[in-house]
Amino acid sequence: MELLDTLFGADLVRAIFSDVLRLQRMLDFEAALAKAQAKIGIIPSSSAAAIAARCRVQQFDLTAIARAAATSGNLAIPMIRQLTKLVAADDENAAGHVHWGATSQDVIDTGLVLQLRDAMSSIEKDLAILSDILVRLAKQHRDTPVVARTWMQHAVPTLFGLQVAGWLDAFDRHRDRLKQMKKRALTLQFGGAGGTLASLGDRGLDVAEALARELHLALPEMPWHSHRDRLAEVATTLALLSGTLGKIARDIALQMQTEISEVSEPAAEGRGGSSTMPHKRNPVSAAVALAAAIRVPGLTSTMLTAMVQEHERGLGGWHAEWDTLPEIVQLTAGSLHHMIEALKGLEIKTDRMLENLEETQGLIFAEAAMMALAKHIGREAAHQLIDAASHRALAERRHLRSVLVEDVAVTRYLPAAEIDGLFDPLSYIGVARKFTDRVLAEHRNVSPTGERG
Amino acid sequence: MELLDTLFGADLVRAIFSDVLRLQRMLDFEAALAKAQAKIGIIPSSSAAAIAARCRVQQFDLTAIARAAATSGNLAIPMIRQLTKLVAADDENAAGHVHWGATSQDVIDTGLVLQLRDAMSSIEKDLAILSDILVRLAKQHRDTPVVARTWMQHAVPTLFGLQVAGWLDAFDRHRDRLKQMKKRALTLQFGGAGGTLASLGDRGLDVAEALARELHLALPEMPWHSHRDRLAEVATTLALLSGTLGKIARDIALQMQTEISEVSEPAAEGRGGSSTMPHKRNPVSAAVALAAAIRVPGLTSTMLTAMVQEHERGLGGWHAEWDTLPEIVQLTAGSLHHMIEALKGLEIKTDRMLENLEETQGLIFAEAAMMALAKHIGREAAHQLIDAASHRALAERRHLRSVLVEDVAVTRYLPAAEIDGLFDPLSYIGVARKFTDRVLAEHRNVSPTGERG
Amino acid sequence: MELLDTLFGADLVRAIFSDVLRLQRMLDFEAALAKAQAKIGIIPSSSAAAIAARCRVQQFDLTAIARAAATSGNLAIPMIRQLTKLVAADDENAAGHVHWGATSQDVIDTGLVLQLRDAMSSIEKDLAILSDILVRLAKQHRDTPVVARTWMQHAVPTLFGLQVAGWLDAFDRHRDRLKQMKKRALTLQFGGAGGTLASLGDRGLDVAEALARELHLALPEMPWHSHRDRLAEVATTLALLSGTLGKIARDIALQMQTEISEVSEPAAEGRGGSSTMPHKRNPVSAAVALAAAIRVPGLTSTMLTAMVQEHERGLGGWHAEWDTLPEIVQLTAGSLHHMIEALKGLEIKTDRMLENLEETQGLIFAEAAMMALAKHIGREAAHQLIDAASHRALAERRHLRSVLVEDVAVTRYLPAAEIDGLFDPLSYIGVARKFTDRVLAEHRNVSPTGERG
Amino acid sequence: MELLDTLFGADLVRAIFSDVLRLQRMLDFEAALAKAQAKIGIIPSSSAAAIAARCRVQQFDLTAIARAAATSGNLAIPMIRQLTKLVAADDENAAGHVHWGATSQDVIDTGLVLQLRDAMSSIEKDLAILSDILVRLAKQHRDTPVVARTWMQHAVPTLFGLQVAGWLDAFDRHRDRLKQMKKRALTLQFGGAGGTLASLGDRGLDVAEALARELHLALPEMPWHSHRDRLAEVATTLALLSGTLGKIARDIALQMQTEISEVSEPAAEGRGGSSTMPHKRNPVSAAVALAAAIRVPGLTSTMLTAMVQEHERGLGGWHAEWDTLPEIVQLTAGSLHHMIEALKGLEIKTDRMLENLEETQGLIFAEAAMMALAKHIGREAAHQLIDAASHRALAERRHLRSVLVEDVAVTRYLPAAEIDGLFDPLSYIGVARKFTDRVLAEHRNVSPTGERG
Repeated sequence: MELLDTLFGADLVRAIFSDVLRLQRMLDFEAALAKAQAKIGIIPSSSAAAIAARCRVQQFDLTAIARAAATSGNLAIPMIRQLTKLVAADDENAAGHVHWGATSQDVIDTGLVLQLRDAMSSIEKDLAILSDILVRLAKQHRDTPVVARTWMQHAVPTLFGLQVAGWLDAFDRHRDRLKQMKKRALTLQFGGAGGTLASLGDRGLDVAEALARELHLALPEMPWHSHRDRLAEVATTLALLSGTLGKIARDIALQMQTEISEVSEPAAEGRGGSSTMPHKRNPVSAAVALAAAIRVPGLTSTMLTAMVQEHERGLGGWHAEWDTLPEIVQLTAGSLHHMIEALKGLEIKTDRMLENLEETQGLIFAEAAMMALAKHIGREAAHQLIDAASHRALAERRHLRSVLVEDVAVTRYLPAAEIDGLFDPLSYIGVARKFTDRVLAEHRNVSPTGERG
Repeated sequence: MELLDTLFGADLVRAIFSDVLRLQRMLDFEAALAKAQAKIGIIPSSSAAAIAARCRVQQFDLTAIARAAATSGNLAIPMIRQLTKLVAADDENAAGHVHWGATSQDVIDTGLVLQLRDAMSSIEKDLAILSDILVRLAKQHRDTPVVARTWMQHAVPTLFGLQVAGWLDAFDRHRDRLKQMKKRALTLQFGGAGGTLASLGDRGLDVAEALARELHLALPEMPWHSHRDRLAEVATTLALLSGTLGKIARDIALQMQTEISEVSEPAAEGRGGSSTMPHKRNPVSAAVALAAAIRVPGLTSTMLTAMVQEHERGLGGWHAEWDTLPEIVQLTAGSLHHMIEALKGLEIKTDRMLENLEETQGLIFAEAAMMALAKHIGREAAHQLIDAASHRALAERRHLRSVLVEDVAVTRYLPAAEIDGLFDPLSYIGVARKFTDRVLAEHRNVSPTGERG
Repeated sequence: MELLDTLFGADLVRAIFSDVLRLQRMLDFEAALAKAQAKIGIIPSSSAAAIAARCRVQQFDLTAIARAAATSGNLAIPMIRQLTKLVAADDENAAGHVHWGATSQDVIDTGLVLQLRDAMSSIEKDLAILSDILVRLAKQHRDTPVVARTWMQHAVPTLFGLQVAGWLDAFDRHRDRLKQMKKRALTLQFGGAGGTLASLGDRGLDVAEALARELHLALPEMPWHSHRDRLAEVATTLALLSGTLGKIARDIALQMQTEISEVSEPAAEGRGGSSTMPHKRNPVSAAVALAAAIRVPGLTSTMLTAMVQEHERGLGGWHAEWDTLPEIVQLTAGSLHHMIEALKGLEIKTDRMLENLEETQGLIFAEAAMMALAKHIGREAAHQLIDAASHRALAERRHLRSVLVEDVAVTRYLPAAEIDGLFDPLSYIGVARKFTDRVLAEHRNVSPTGERG
Repeated sequence: MELLDTLFGADLVRAIFSDVLRLQRMLDFEAALAKAQAKIGIIPSSSAAAIAARCRVQQFDLTAIARAAATSGNLAIPMIRQLTKLVAADDENAAGHVHWGATSQDVIDTGLVLQLRDAMSSIEKDLAILSDILVRLAKQHRDTPVVARTWMQHAVPTLFGLQVAGWLDAFDRHRDRLKQMKKRALTLQFGGAGGTLASLGDRGLDVAEALARELHLALPEMPWHSHRDRLAEVATTLALLSGTLGKIARDIALQMQTEISEVSEPAAEGRGGSSTMPHKRNPVSAAVALAAAIRVPGLTSTMLTAMVQEHERGLGGWHAEWDTLPEIVQLTAGSLHHMIEALKGLEIKTDRMLENLEETQGLIFAEAAMMALAKHIGREAAHQLIDAASHRALAERRHLRSVLVEDVAVTRYLPAAEIDGLFDPLSYIGVARKFTDRVLAEHRNVSPTGERG
């Protein structure tokens, strides 16, 4: 399924989860294990050097590993077998120290953690970039009126800056979640066959500590072979992020509809063209982000279902994770990449936003009128009065303003000038700007790397 | 994620969903379209010949297509562009007839349907093979006693043949489902840009009919661009199958546990070995089938969620299907392949089955005893009596038989010989054999191709 | 969660899955079991009469059953205990024949099947009603032009009748699926403790046959205690249906947007009103159907995951079904009910459909123009020419027609009158009417009960 | 579906999500809103008092609200209508101040947040109780040998204390997650019709602040009507917890199997009895926790899918949450409750654990033997030697120990006494105790309320 990877993924994260880097990270574990064991004197330094020298994926026959995995049931066994042979060719003694004390799951899980560390770093950088774009947009459009839509119907006016602030605000939470999750998830897996490191005698913990240092990973209280909440939390954290990206994509797709045309994904050579309709521009980035938001929940439910793993190391549940978690990471990274593309060059048509506010001939200001009237005659009465006027406006296809100025029950309390003012979008946006400012305040001292002050 | 494909997939179906065959099936659509249009006189025969000559995937630059898909949003657009260029090199006029009247989704959807047709054929063949294996096993073990376990506790005796018949019976239903689903799902997609075939004027339906004939596909009442129940049903049908395969895998894994050891996946070079525990045989096939049974439901929920597609052709939902459905097919085919592997060489330890029946020192026959006694004193009284005896047997770690023969309240109605007979597994298996025979009767006249008579 | 049941459910199906009817159907099983056993002479007729007389839910203490279920782990055990007591009060001997030979799962599963039979009958009736509405709409609007939208952008013209025919066509498939599924799913569950009916000696199958007759249910080849594909297929079949209903709801919600206003859910007292916006009409039915289409896939994935049930009767998987399947049925029935409500009174604004076709100032006819031109100069050249004209029209905010009539490269081949004709929606709808007619042909001889001839 | 609620739920949390408390929490919002507005002088104190006096669920007609919700599309509209009438009966003027400035979603979302706050508090208390139980068990069984099982096969020895420590360790992470999630999730929802609080003019933020204070909820930067990551994170956090509970339940169910019998759920009157098998004890609590672990992932995927909500307030997605999130909370609380029940009285059979270690006649110590030998002859040679011995032991059905002491290739390096020592479980448990101690160290200063020092 490589053909579609460029569409749905993001280049860097796609590389991180390539076959080649998957194996390399497993080999990184083996090299670090040998070095750690040499440092604390469990194996000779010469063995560590000989092993580390061979832990380079270029020297491995990936096809053979893939084929052997079909009978061994995992990638580690054939990889270690190849590694052992390669090392033996250089140093027979060192070959006996390959993978010493570790079990297949140690190398597979830790290799995955190393991939996840790289991927999370890339995603965090992209999140910072996206936030910067949104900060700029929210400031630029702090005063741009646009329709607030609820239940997919016009409701009342709002500001486009606030709409953007809502997107930005969600990413602030996602960045906190990622940070907290990483502390729990990015830890060493090292327990040996049964989680006791028994084959290392009483040196197991020493090796574990040295190995964690070598890989710059946190050392967990104990191995977590059959406790998968750490990895499942990677999935859920990204699923939440992917959901927000999908929500933005939906907003863009909706506001980009031909009849609405308030925003548009940027135009670019070959981007979103149709094979037969020359005038059409398809929201390609929105399509990708929406697809991700549809796919990631199902994949995440797989990661959650797979948590029920048996005893010290489970059957089936572990295997179910191998392709699922990388897919979640890649889909989320791809969705993020596409939303950066869409938002950084987003075409924003403020004139069209104003036109759309007029679509209902003033009915969108009905609540404003009701509230203004309610101050004089109470809400219930105001509601009835404006309701009647609204229905008249609809039936007679007239502007609500003109219906109201003719209605003595209204003009008794509201002079024509005040009625006119009710139909200015900026007169009925409440504390929208204050909300936007509260969100932006979080970003006042943002460093270039995206760390909030 | 190629490295794990050999483990989780089945060779043939994996090939069907390779990048190369994905594109080839799309090209098959383009070739057939040109031929169909030539046949009904819409384009010259020379054009059809020129187009068909170039519809061979070997001539295409897949990397360029993948790269271009990232901006065009689908594979069809860059593929058609390449095809047009290739054809133009041979016949400038024919180039203008490439993809005539079709839209991207026509070629992508129909290409997928062609892949699905091949895959379903392979899966049906494997289902027939699996059924044959199960027919043999059910017959062989029609009289082999084994513990019936409920809520993961010993319940009463049953026959291993009936356990196998239960598996077989489920596959009978799956084969019917596949057959019925194929009639609905394997249909042509051809509607042009808006589902009206407008660019073909009044010849749209003629082309559609000729094209369906060309591809040996059914012609649907109308295009189904945004009605995805056909494809979602492929997913649900396979998900049901995958669930049954997972159930069998769980049974095997449970009965293969060290303390139970009633069955075992076949031994083979490299199969299920552990890197550090020489005595261990891991149930690799069960692991794969269980992993599939965990993954397919989440993927299927994606296909179902993706059904909500907008208007004439949707945004995001369609894209969400592209990798998801092939993954479901491949996981199911892989699971099926592994269960064939596991079952065709399954080691069955009938002696261990008998030993396990004795594990509870006769308590597994408590219901038998209760029923025998109930004939004389009613069920309630019998229940109480046997309940007491059972607890005594447990407390005193004695065989229930010996407790019963000492109990005058029991021996008053049941002579010792009759009590003895109660503890023969074959004396308390009800109509187990009849159930097995009812299932086997469905397979009396099975042709070599698996069609039931 | 009763409060929301009236919103999300349909009255009849909600009643079918009420606590009261859930228990009643279980009691129906117990009554039928006793009658069947009396008929074949296993228990006295007097016992059957005594038992049947007490199998009325009004006589049971539901609160006590609910409380006891928390320790017994299912509803059958406390229900049978109450039943036995009730019968004993009338006829001590009969009490010993209650639930004779059956296990908890027999009564729970069969009770559920009886509920499903009623629910499917109700859903099928509603499907027939919905189809009749759609047949009427498709005929009425066979010639009503409307925009075909793809990727949420205007594509080309189509007919509203064809849009409706697409909905109708999907329901035709769903009705076939339901019919086929019912044959597999609506079968008796009766196997006793271990699936062998051992406690009935050699009369097990006779009882099973008589019981199936009594309940008018099909007798399966063997019990299916741990083979849940029958029930999971109920879920997947309804999930497919729910997906189509969600697709229609999305279409309605999109076409009901303020700026588009092509259709509207019917107005009714209290329906979709806003608490503060007097002019607003919320698409309540679409909201419910969309919510169902979001919820049912997750619930269905639960049913599929739960299929992996252990041995003869599983642990956890079975329990996971109890609330999940009824929820799926109710959500689907509710969604169906709401779509009937929405569609039977759907307001269709054909004038607005025409206006929207003009939204792009003729660009929606660009493909038509390109195709007309292509006949003269080939598709590639035509594409470039129309592409340029389209961009000019966009840039200068003019109608494409007026740009084309000024372009000598166009008028050389197409006279002004022919250009004018290109911009008539009905001139570029291909075989849309034929597609509609093909779908309607399936409904020519529909009987009042919805059976197609 | 009330009948099963006592089985699957936990009493307190079930009450929190009852219809009555759902409405009461919504009324709490209305009362607090009036009070807050009175405090900052927006409405008269008399109005606030009149409104607050009527915000008691006992005065409401729930059936009428449920019925009206079916047309209004949510519970808030009919509830507010009833409230307004009730208040009007006391104070006509106050009636005009009911729900002032708020929208339906404000009251529904905040009401839900108040329910969640109560539920999380209950869940955290139960987590503390469960952790205390596990601390005790881990200490008690710090030195109890048990089989470590991987891929559902015997692997090597471990300690039961470490198995328990693994469970405990996971809950430590869950408690951190809950704490972090609560900070994000438990916030006020208050934005008015379009998220701008426009109907409160420039006092919107003042009201929001006062209202947050009144309800003791955090005030978010801005309303989050269509940004549902806060609520979806409640779901994912509980789903992770539910996964761990399911893993423990699986372990218990597996170790409780008749042939294994290492642990058992506590016996109690009516608990897990079978209707026909007097000797059987079903793991009811494990069944419930496993069912929850199967159901919650699907429900969580619904919450994630529902995140794609349109514009300022969405259609369908919001509605999909209403029953789904409460269901997730209740299932998780019920699962937690059942695991407390199972673990606080768990029967632990240490003698049976020892017996099972002998099940393979010493093969479980093969790795120990290999490692001991490897020190002398290298791992590769040792592996081959022990492999051969293991197969001999298997073939001849002898204890591995007796095979090894006869093998001169072994005895050359290992004297008989040393070989004997290899088969003592406590001699091959590596740093198992140290791992256990590391986990327990986190619990040294646990206060009675469960706060870790």
